[in-house]
Amino acid sequence: MKVTISSTFDSGNIEVVNVENTQNIQLNIRKDTNSDFLQWFYFRMQGAKDQKCNIHLMNAKDAGYPEGWDNYQARASYDREEWFQIPTKYENGVLSMDFTPDFDSVYIAYFAPFTYEQHLDLVNNAQLSPICDLEHLGETVQGRPIDFLRIGDDDPKKKKLWVIARQHPGEAMAEWFMLGLISRLIDEEDAAVASLLQKANFYIVPNMNIDGSILGNLRVNANGIDFNREWAEPSIENSPEVFYVKQKMKETGMDFMLDVHGDEGLPYVFISGIEGIPSFDEKLRNLTDQFMANWKMANPDIQDVHGYPKNEPGKANLKICSKNIGEEFKCLSQTLEMPFKQNDNIPDLEYGWSPERSIKLGESLVNTLLNMVDDF
Amino acid sequence: MKVTISSTFDSGNIEVVNVENTQNIQLNIRKDTNSDFLQWFYFRMQGAKDQKCNIHLMNAKDAGYPEGWDNYQARASYDREEWFQIPTKYENGVLSMDFTPDFDSVYIAYFAPFTYEQHLDLVNNAQLSPICDLEHLGETVQGRPIDFLRIGDDDPKKKKLWVIARQHPGEAMAEWFMLGLISRLIDEEDAAVASLLQKANFYIVPNMNIDGSILGNLRVNANGIDFNREWAEPSIENSPEVFYVKQKMKETGMDFMLDVHGDEGLPYVFISGIEGIPSFDEKLRNLTDQFMANWKMANPDIQDVHGYPKNEPGKANLKICSKNIGEEFKCLSQTLEMPFKQNDNIPDLEYGWSPERSIKLGESLVNTLLNMVDDF
Amino acid sequence: MKVTISSTFDSGNIEVVNVENTQNIQLNIRKDTNSDFLQWFYFRMQGAKDQKCNIHLMNAKDAGYPEGWDNYQARASYDREEWFQIPTKYENGVLSMDFTPDFDSVYIAYFAPFTYEQHLDLVNNAQLSPICDLEHLGETVQGRPIDFLRIGDDDPKKKKLWVIARQHPGEAMAEWFMLGLISRLIDEEDAAVASLLQKANFYIVPNMNIDGSILGNLRVNANGIDFNREWAEPSIENSPEVFYVKQKMKETGMDFMLDVHGDEGLPYVFISGIEGIPSFDEKLRNLTDQFMANWKMANPDIQDVHGYPKNEPGKANLKICSKNIGEEFKCLSQTLEMPFKQNDNIPDLEYGWSPERSIKLGESLVNTLLNMVDDF
Amino acid sequence: MKVTISSTFDSGNIEVVNVENTQNIQLNIRKDTNSDFLQWFYFRMQGAKDQKCNIHLMNAKDAGYPEGWDNYQARASYDREEWFQIPTKYENGVLSMDFTPDFDSVYIAYFAPFTYEQHLDLVNNAQLSPICDLEHLGETVQGRPIDFLRIGDDDPKKKKLWVIARQHPGEAMAEWFMLGLISRLIDEEDAAVASLLQKANFYIVPNMNIDGSILGNLRVNANGIDFNREWAEPSIENSPEVFYVKQKMKETGMDFMLDVHGDEGLPYVFISGIEGIPSFDEKLRNLTDQFMANWKMANPDIQDVHGYPKNEPGKANLKICSKNIGEEFKCLSQTLEMPFKQNDNIPDLEYGWSPERSIKLGESLVNTLLNMVDDF
Repeated sequence: MKVTISSTFDSGNIEVVNVENTQNIQLNIRKDTNSDFLQWFYFRMQGAKDQKCNIHLMNAKDAGYPEGWDNYQARASYDREEWFQIPTKYENGVLSMDFTPDFDSVYIAYFAPFTYEQHLDLVNNAQLSPICDLEHLGETVQGRPIDFLRIGDDDPKKKKLWVIARQHPGEAMAEWFMLGLISRLIDEEDAAVASLLQKANFYIVPNMNIDGSILGNLRVNANGIDFNREWAEPSIENSPEVFYVKQKMKETGMDFMLDVHGDEGLPYVFISGIEGIPSFDEKLRNLTDQFMANWKMANPDIQDVHGYPKNEPGKANLKICSKNIGEEFKCLSQTLEMPFKQNDNIPDLEYGWSPERSIKLGESLVNTLLNMVDDF
Repeated sequence: MKVTISSTFDSGNIEVVNVENTQNIQLNIRKDTNSDFLQWFYFRMQGAKDQKCNIHLMNAKDAGYPEGWDNYQARASYDREEWFQIPTKYENGVLSMDFTPDFDSVYIAYFAPFTYEQHLDLVNNAQLSPICDLEHLGETVQGRPIDFLRIGDDDPKKKKLWVIARQHPGEAMAEWFMLGLISRLIDEEDAAVASLLQKANFYIVPNMNIDGSILGNLRVNANGIDFNREWAEPSIENSPEVFYVKQKMKETGMDFMLDVHGDEGLPYVFISGIEGIPSFDEKLRNLTDQFMANWKMANPDIQDVHGYPKNEPGKANLKICSKNIGEEFKCLSQTLEMPFKQNDNIPDLEYGWSPERSIKLGESLVNTLLNMVDDF
Repeated sequence: MKVTISSTFDSGNIEVVNVENTQNIQLNIRKDTNSDFLQWFYFRMQGAKDQKCNIHLMNAKDAGYPEGWDNYQARASYDREEWFQIPTKYENGVLSMDFTPDFDSVYIAYFAPFTYEQHLDLVNNAQLSPICDLEHLGETVQGRPIDFLRIGDDDPKKKKLWVIARQHPGEAMAEWFMLGLISRLIDEEDAAVASLLQKANFYIVPNMNIDGSILGNLRVNANGIDFNREWAEPSIENSPEVFYVKQKMKETGMDFMLDVHGDEGLPYVFISGIEGIPSFDEKLRNLTDQFMANWKMANPDIQDVHGYPKNEPGKANLKICSKNIGEEFKCLSQTLEMPFKQNDNIPDLEYGWSPERSIKLGESLVNTLLNMVDDF
Repeated sequence: MKVTISSTFDSGNIEVVNVENTQNIQLNIRKDTNSDFLQWFYFRMQGAKDQKCNIHLMNAKDAGYPEGWDNYQARASYDREEWFQIPTKYENGVLSMDFTPDFDSVYIAYFAPFTYEQHLDLVNNAQLSPICDLEHLGETVQGRPIDFLRIGDDDPKKKKLWVIARQHPGEAMAEWFMLGLISRLIDEEDAAVASLLQKANFYIVPNMNIDGSILGNLRVNANGIDFNREWAEPSIENSPEVFYVKQKMKETGMDFMLDVHGDEGLPYVFISGIEGIPSFDEKLRNLTDQFMANWKMANPDIQDVHGYPKNEPGKANLKICSKNIGEEFKCLSQTLEMPFKQNDNIPDLEYGWSPERSIKLGESLVNTLLNMVDDF
């Protein structure tokens, strides 16, 4: 049977160069919309059952983060529920996968996708909880609703805890994290949740970049804008998604913010903080340390040995979400990074960093916050 | 909260005229791609929790089958799993729904949708069966794979039973039917299936019109073509979906064909046959009668009191799938129609004709065929 | 690790002779309570993971139906959900199983058990349906409730359809059949059920012999009584279970009765009828024939080539349930027999006759009755 | 319909005094086997649908812990999956429930039962994990297997963590706790579990008192023995369950032990420690404190404000499990107590202390131990 490749579905991304020979299938990653970024891929291969396939992403060297390919293993699935790692190597600028599918149709992706249909299910189901409201903050560039969840009782005397995810749409693990967090928050038989909601309300944007997710982009929205450089001056024209969310933040106020991401390069879970913002002070330092200490207790996937270099005092880029928000609201505001590769400290040889691990990390944020919420 | 309406998702279709006033929400159904047909709608309404809404489809009179609105009840869902009927009436050319949502976000559709993501899950899961192969027949107009399932052992001495569905993409019940049929055929602990597969193989196209389904069309593909008038001379340019399927039919041969549809007007399940084709003879008449008698025994939803008038001898339109195929292969070839409204003989006041009833109808095709397969 | 055998649980039955040597594990089937019948076994073997075991039922020759061991394969399970066949042979009066378990703890049984806890779940869940009432008919010998289900609206003008099962407690497939039948009858989106309940009500005893089931008996209740010889003169002392059920039958009246059993010897599904009762006439003959014809259409597991010899006219034993009831109510009254072995017509090499096949047979009774209910 | 009461099932316990009048149903709790203890009840009431029932446990004043009835709410269930609280009061030595059932058959119990069938499912499923072995430690008084789970790789250099539950069979929450703990430990995609099993192995007895559980006892085994006074000198005659478990503890060695219980009186989750054992020293004090601090971080249901008074130094009763084991192995050895009533700090008005909360408490033991395992 002839091998065919397609990506004409929600979050798909690939361009076919040559599929005549299963030993040398040549593909390119399509650039993000109105942008030169490229790295996310998600495609379906048909007709290669029981055939040894060598699949080459020819333009891997042009990726936004080519270091992301070192020691990276691509993910594959037959049913789009179980995503396992397949043998992958990066040589001479080409990312190559060596794989013999067991079934006619197989999906291959940079990471287990979290599609728009899954996003709609996530917010649909959350709204059924009596303590969760679903709100429409405005429209994306392509006219989709920006979904916003309020969880709790909206009592203004309680702490306001914001969590947003997936500014960069290719970082799908960020929405798997949200699935874990939100599912736990609406569980009415969870003592930690009940205790935390006595003191705090949650304000959640599970997917900041809906259009980019559907388009199969790594990093930008339909206008080609990287949201995480927009927070100083978001505009309805360029980045309505950021504009409306920041507007809502000002309306609710804020005592804590977490911005959830994936990192292409580092094989670890880590936090990027706000040491470099002008307002960083002793209280914020203590909160930063306590947050890391608490989360380590709640989930050993988090660590602070590996990560980005910390900004020098006053040197933070205030266009970046967590830094901008930390400065504006004088509150603990952190960026979470999860790997596309592995957590090398606790590796999973079959699945790599996975939806399941992302979900559990999201769940564990509850204990992390419960144990410090009075200090915000 | 302000009410908003969106349809920017898989199979969505609506145009907003005016949503300022919940008592008078005015919408239009968008025309099919490159076509004047319109009737399928599927949209999400947000922000109307606990508010009495009057939703008007202003251009309902321009629908392909305006008689379809008489006694029709629209379907709504909060979780997109349970689709219930809401009070609906058709007056002065406008279809109006009167509805107070219980939650922030509600979906309203012409019928419970079966999206492309659900289609991919259907074929992904089917291929995991050891007796099912999934094949790529060619590309749709928009470049998507035409998925084809072979169920059985491909022994050429066995009878060849073809089932296709959803030439008209808005007839979503046709793919719910397929979900029932295919799930049953791959059940290894079903005695009727085991018996039938001793004598026959199945060749199945679960969705003939993938592009039209995603586009939210009622009746046509991305070129504006109504497939069910294409079977005499399908072309790769206009209707590659029909072209490739008919090509495959010629390759496999055929002893029976069922083409699965929904009917906008009649509140019944019925069969449209091939009495009008030149080759119709005593054997085909007997098979036609036996097929109806068997199916009635297997599922009381099917009936032959109500239906389309039968063609006069020789007057069949051979551009129509079942008639063309019946003539070409001299075999029993039938069109199945399920209602968008109700089966008035066995009404379900809460759900109307439903995915569940469509699924069970699909399952019951197995017994129908088992009890006559030797006669094909 | 030392191998141990236990059966001290719901429906368990075994006696240990010698388990010192895994190559020669010697066991006996325990006799039924106050009875010489023996054939049902159900035990747990621990500590034999990855060891080749030869398990011998030393007193198999004393079984009620030793012909039942010919070509019989015992069932085993690690999780008590999936019950698969293991290599079994009958030689010199001993039934021997040759088996290497994959896990520490394995269950081995004559047939997939249906325990009292499963029975309670079955009736608990049925009662949640708005069309199902659960009634207490009286107490068993050991003081347990005799559970009785009424499904429908109890309109006395409708036909009264009785189904009872498991007079012989070791015939567990009879209650799997009931699980299928009852689950289908309370499905509110099933057109055949809706049609049938327009014309009939169901009266169901899912397990006639609760005590015997828990005790791990093949054939009798806690008093050692075989119910299927009690119907002429049941007594509260000996067989309260039969007494109270027959009392209720007289109270409701009856238009049809099915008594569900398993047969140790024959590798087929078949019906034993009432040809030998005094009242057998043309109408009952027609109903008998129609019932078989209908059920064959609905499920190919049923057949009438193999079965018990038919009684000569007037020679029926009126102590037997179906014959007694047929005579008393002048209605179609049939005994269904399912195999412990296989249906040799449609064999399943992995599972043999199985819970799943029993369930589907139960479901298919609905169509069988729907297509003849007006004739009762 | 006449109301009937039965308890002739796994873990059932009740005696009927008078059920003639639904306004005054009089029952007694049956004494434990060979013992004067009584408090556990679990029965089925039939025939009271839509009738206001007043159910009186006449001998409640004779319960082992009559203070347990103050502010206690009995649990009821229609499907034995969801167990909700019903209005209950204790006056003049009688415990009275005021309740109108919605269905024909309802179960009422002291706490959501965890039956022997559920126990078998728990260990059956655990053994399917590649890192879990299931072992038979010996037989109970009534001849049932004492099930023992080893989770990990049995590397003798790792820490040995023991958890046992349900010495007192009526404390069913203890096995719900085990369900949570064991299910988490065999989850291969849990980073905390993976980290902990790098350093430790688990040795688990999910139910110490199998016979007592089936018999519906509160506190003793089939011999009438309270296990938690047997640890100094267990004997095969009186308490084989304790004898074999202690023997296995000596064989494996031990670095930590948790004994899981329920407490009839206090509406809190708490720990009872080993301050009074001769070997209690600075290291054990630090471990005791750290264990409490860690668990509080992992789950706010645990607390140390309320609990039993601590033993004076040297005054511990070494017949009690945790104290005996702490002294023998010089390791942290703790008794966990969960309420039958509520956790008054985080009350759940619908369910009270529940299976779900017990499960989550069991899950949270993993983080508690991970954060101190190096210190054992």
